[in-house]
Amino acid sequence: MTHLPEWTTLIHHDSSDVYLSDMTPRINDTITVKIRVPVDAPIKVLYLRSRPDGEWKRIKMSKTETTDVCEWWSAEMPIRMYHNNYQFHILADFGSFYFNQYGVSPIDSPDWFNFTVLGDYDPVEWVREQVFYQIFPERFDNGDSSNDRIAGTPSIMGKDVQVRDWGDIPKPWLETKTVEFFGGDLQGITQHLDYLEDLGVTAIYLNPIFDAETNHFYDIRNFDKVADNLGGDEALIELRQAMTNRGMKLMLDITPNHIGFHNDWFQSAINDPDSETAEFFYRHPDTQEFEYWLGVSSLVKLNYHSQKLRDKMYRNSDSPIRKWLQAPYSIDGWRLDVANMTGNYWQHQEDVEVWQEMRKAIKDENSDAYMMGEYFQDSSKHLQGDELDATMNYQGFNTPVRRWIGKGDLGVEEDKDFGDTNIFPTESLAIQWKQYMTAIPYIVALQQFNQIGSHDISRPMWVTEGDTALIKAGTALLMGFPGTPCVYYADEIGMEGGHDPDNRRCMPWDENLWDTDLRSFHQHVIAIRKNSHALQHGGFQIIYAGGDLVAFQRQSSQEQMLVVAYRGDDDMPAVNLNVIKANIADSTILTDLLTDTQYTVADGTLTLEGLAHGQSLFLKVSK
Amino acid sequence: MTHLPEWTTLIHHDSSDVYLSDMTPRINDTITVKIRVPVDAPIKVLYLRSRPDGEWKRIKMSKTETTDVCEWWSAEMPIRMYHNNYQFHILADFGSFYFNQYGVSPIDSPDWFNFTVLGDYDPVEWVREQVFYQIFPERFDNGDSSNDRIAGTPSIMGKDVQVRDWGDIPKPWLETKTVEFFGGDLQGITQHLDYLEDLGVTAIYLNPIFDAETNHFYDIRNFDKVADNLGGDEALIELRQAMTNRGMKLMLDITPNHIGFHNDWFQSAINDPDSETAEFFYRHPDTQEFEYWLGVSSLVKLNYHSQKLRDKMYRNSDSPIRKWLQAPYSIDGWRLDVANMTGNYWQHQEDVEVWQEMRKAIKDENSDAYMMGEYFQDSSKHLQGDELDATMNYQGFNTPVRRWIGKGDLGVEEDKDFGDTNIFPTESLAIQWKQYMTAIPYIVALQQFNQIGSHDISRPMWVTEGDTALIKAGTALLMGFPGTPCVYYADEIGMEGGHDPDNRRCMPWDENLWDTDLRSFHQHVIAIRKNSHALQHGGFQIIYAGGDLVAFQRQSSQEQMLVVAYRGDDDMPAVNLNVIKANIADSTILTDLLTDTQYTVADGTLTLEGLAHGQSLFLKVSK
Repeated sequence: MTHLPEWTTLIHHDSSDVYLSDMTPRINDTITVKIRVPVDAPIKVLYLRSRPDGEWKRIKMSKTETTDVCEWWSAEMPIRMYHNNYQFHILADFGSFYFNQYGVSPIDSPDWFNFTVLGDYDPVEWVREQVFYQIFPERFDNGDSSNDRIAGTPSIMGKDVQVRDWGDIPKPWLETKTVEFFGGDLQGITQHLDYLEDLGVTAIYLNPIFDAETNHFYDIRNFDKVADNLGGDEALIELRQAMTNRGMKLMLDITPNHIGFHNDWFQSAINDPDSETAEFFYRHPDTQEFEYWLGVSSLVKLNYHSQKLRDKMYRNSDSPIRKWLQAPYSIDGWRLDVANMTGNYWQHQEDVEVWQEMRKAIKDENSDAYMMGEYFQDSSKHLQGDELDATMNYQGFNTPVRRWIGKGDLGVEEDKDFGDTNIFPTESLAIQWKQYMTAIPYIVALQQFNQIGSHDISRPMWVTEGDTALIKAGTALLMGFPGTPCVYYADEIGMEGGHDPDNRRCMPWDENLWDTDLRSFHQHVIAIRKNSHALQHGGFQIIYAGGDLVAFQRQSSQEQMLVVAYRGDDDMPAVNLNVIKANIADSTILTDLLTDTQYTVADGTLTLEGLAHGQSLFLKVSK
Repeated sequence: MTHLPEWTTLIHHDSSDVYLSDMTPRINDTITVKIRVPVDAPIKVLYLRSRPDGEWKRIKMSKTETTDVCEWWSAEMPIRMYHNNYQFHILADFGSFYFNQYGVSPIDSPDWFNFTVLGDYDPVEWVREQVFYQIFPERFDNGDSSNDRIAGTPSIMGKDVQVRDWGDIPKPWLETKTVEFFGGDLQGITQHLDYLEDLGVTAIYLNPIFDAETNHFYDIRNFDKVADNLGGDEALIELRQAMTNRGMKLMLDITPNHIGFHNDWFQSAINDPDSETAEFFYRHPDTQEFEYWLGVSSLVKLNYHSQKLRDKMYRNSDSPIRKWLQAPYSIDGWRLDVANMTGNYWQHQEDVEVWQEMRKAIKDENSDAYMMGEYFQDSSKHLQGDELDATMNYQGFNTPVRRWIGKGDLGVEEDKDFGDTNIFPTESLAIQWKQYMTAIPYIVALQQFNQIGSHDISRPMWVTEGDTALIKAGTALLMGFPGTPCVYYADEIGMEGGHDPDNRRCMPWDENLWDTDLRSFHQHVIAIRKNSHALQHGGFQIIYAGGDLVAFQRQSSQEQMLVVAYRGDDDMPAVNLNVIKANIADSTILTDLLTDTQYTVADGTLTLEGLAHGQSLFLKVSK
């Protein structure tokens, strides 16, 4: 990369309310756009450049405020489209350069790199304010043993149902064919809402609960009813009511990509090629065989080339996508399983169309409902405002953070030969964060679904080999990062578990089995998150990423906070953070909300030293 | 950026026929994909990773060939979609990394960075084999003075027609209101085809020639006839026939974004709000005023929200987009003016739809027709195979090269305060090339329309302040670069001219006014381009970019060539190029096709020294 003078790296803008007078403008509005540069930056002219209707529009910016540390330049930008991208063009003595969401460069880069503000866009704003808790329903608690599956009952999976004692270790898939049951149900969740409230979480993401044969319920047999062994519809209504009473949000999980082998739609199709539902399924162009999810024959791939299927899944008012959003269930959002493959098959790459249509259906039922898709891969194409509200942010947060705190590489945990056991460089962590954030509008980044554990990946305890200090570091980053944080059940008490089904062990209710220190830490950082306007709504700026230390700023109109995590050995040698970059003046006091330790800025620098292994800081800037 | 070992920077793949067994596979084909790494690279495993139907597919590669310099690894990749992106995942001792179209990185980057191979895609393959010559028709030669405009005739532009002597300098717009005429016409082109053949060019891109009021003809009054003062339809038929006899291709220029104020469609609309064509035009949401191109009232913006307009422009068999592709005109392609704004207005951002539909219309008339859009901005969104075949590659080639050889910054030539007079770093040139090439499938890059001069920007003579050595360097890069090269008329003889209309001076036919040395150079490099399979069809790899020297490799299955350009002072100090990177072994002889000088590789290095200011080399690798 071409050399850039130091001062250019201190420039900042993000699409938060510190820099935009309105983060969610209507079309035809004009908004004020600000950029912050260090005091006395040798800037000759500074332009805001956007592309209304495809043509460049250059708006000259003017210096409107100067503080001890920074100058603020601003300009008025008219909003006339849904998707407005913009960047800054700076001419200095030594040459011109561009500042976009990826940073500063002498290159006039493709639009991919630019900032984006959406016009007429309604974010699902409550999402940012939550802390989610993910529950795999069969393993949280058995609240009603009368609905348990019966051991030895024949199952369609080729094995008889196995019933296990609570707390036993799940057996490998091949041994159980996914019909091993521990008895968890919705009643078990309802009975533990006090526990969740005490932990501090405010929303639940439940793995599938509809009628199905297996213990993961992803092989849905009937979208219209809650599985009997999870308590049936009544148990869901009770849970919903109890959560509403506590002001909690509820997100369910559905499988638009496939249905269970024994779903009537598929049974009709295989029994009668002329049946109405025959067109709901793909057949391989050569073999004419039905298509299954990655070849798993219990999960039959759905074909959205069928308009009738679209009616059945989301257009009809009684379609499952709509029904559960309606009273008395009134769920607050959907997690869409295997979103990365939904609507895609050979020449039929209809995902964009499906998401746009499904979005209309969901928002029609509840304009504030959350539409979040499973995506291990890059999902940015679908996160431009008119398709998904968010995805499970594996590439943009989960995976790089897990690689930063341990053996979180997806290949390692599946014991593949491409698994990388080397620790992820901190610089790489920062670059990966930036690349995936650059790929989407920031207003969407604020509702991305972040986790460090889920039902599809090994437990943080496995990733860190039991190093709870590193789990704390990862959890701090989770709470500090833009988007909504979600804790996978039992990660807060340090439950062990490798790849699935080992990561789906039973929640232990004997407190002696809990790591109470880790749980207290969770309570603490969850509380910090919930009380912080900056962490919920603020922008994002990486301040430092090197060695074993990463620090980023979150700033909103109401609050300014630095989030720091350290993964090195105890007693970290001094590191000087340049906080001019963060717009923090000398003599400013920053207070770590975890320890109440105060730090004072001097010479444009915040010095951190002596941090312990895995320590994190939430440094709130005093006004 | 995280440090990467040297050997990882020597890895190469591109989507050319050296690395893909088929650059244009059909859906359902399986192709062989190869990657080249240096000999003894410490690779543990190497995977090809693609995303059929949205899910990662990892295909293990195996070492299939070892030469003195490199190892070749390969794998079979099934093609099942139109748009297939892929990358390489390499695990080495020190960690894993990803190799994508942008290069090597420890980051698992968003799909934007990946290589792309299109399925069922038909490139406009003849385009790569041409050297285009752009002619502004009113200024090439006056072949028939009987059709000249009459001085003093009243004009709709608010000035009377002015007629000027051939060779006079065009006056500024404000003085002439674009009704200043020199008398050039199509007959003048037909009469000079010998000149063009002698120069070596094989295709003509003509600026608009349809009935219009101004000298630039972008204010089209009637799409259905060639302007009388350019010779009318008959002159076009004659030109076409004469070109066909010589095997030459012809591309015309049309204005899908707007029409002339005096076009009947618009006259009907303003005279009668109920007229059929009233819906062909946008009105400002607040003022209800008609919309013009950047406020220029002679150019009225078209509204593609009107289905009738779509019929009239490209769907009907007699629509202009179709008509001129038909006999006897049988043009070979369209240059689409202001493509960046066509179909876009406030909430109506219908460009994608318009291009997809217009593509169908064009290819329906002639499946091998070229559809090329004007785009000063990033156009990569529309270059994914199903919209435009190509764009005028201002961002990906023209502008950075003009900035590299002189004051080619767009702001400088328009004398704007954001104009950058500093020379563009060579590293930046290389990065800008890479970024825009990364943004599109390589098969599309091969038909991009490259220039260093056009009717919309100042002449290379202006950019370089008359430094023809630098013009030669730029022209060499033009001939060497992936895509089709186009020379703007009279640039080959060193005509002067700043921003328009000064860049539209009359072609001088007095050879004493020519820079014959510059013209000979053009003949030489055009011939090299036309005889080179590598330059027409090969991949692209930057070998060196630093100081004042840039070198890239073009390699196809049939030929291997390094293109070098040097902009520094005479007698360049020695620079050692690492040609292991280029797969060139010790003792290999490279011959510069411009000077016949031979270079021999030793110690993995090609040493270049003593180059003259502006010197370029086309180093052909001996087999």
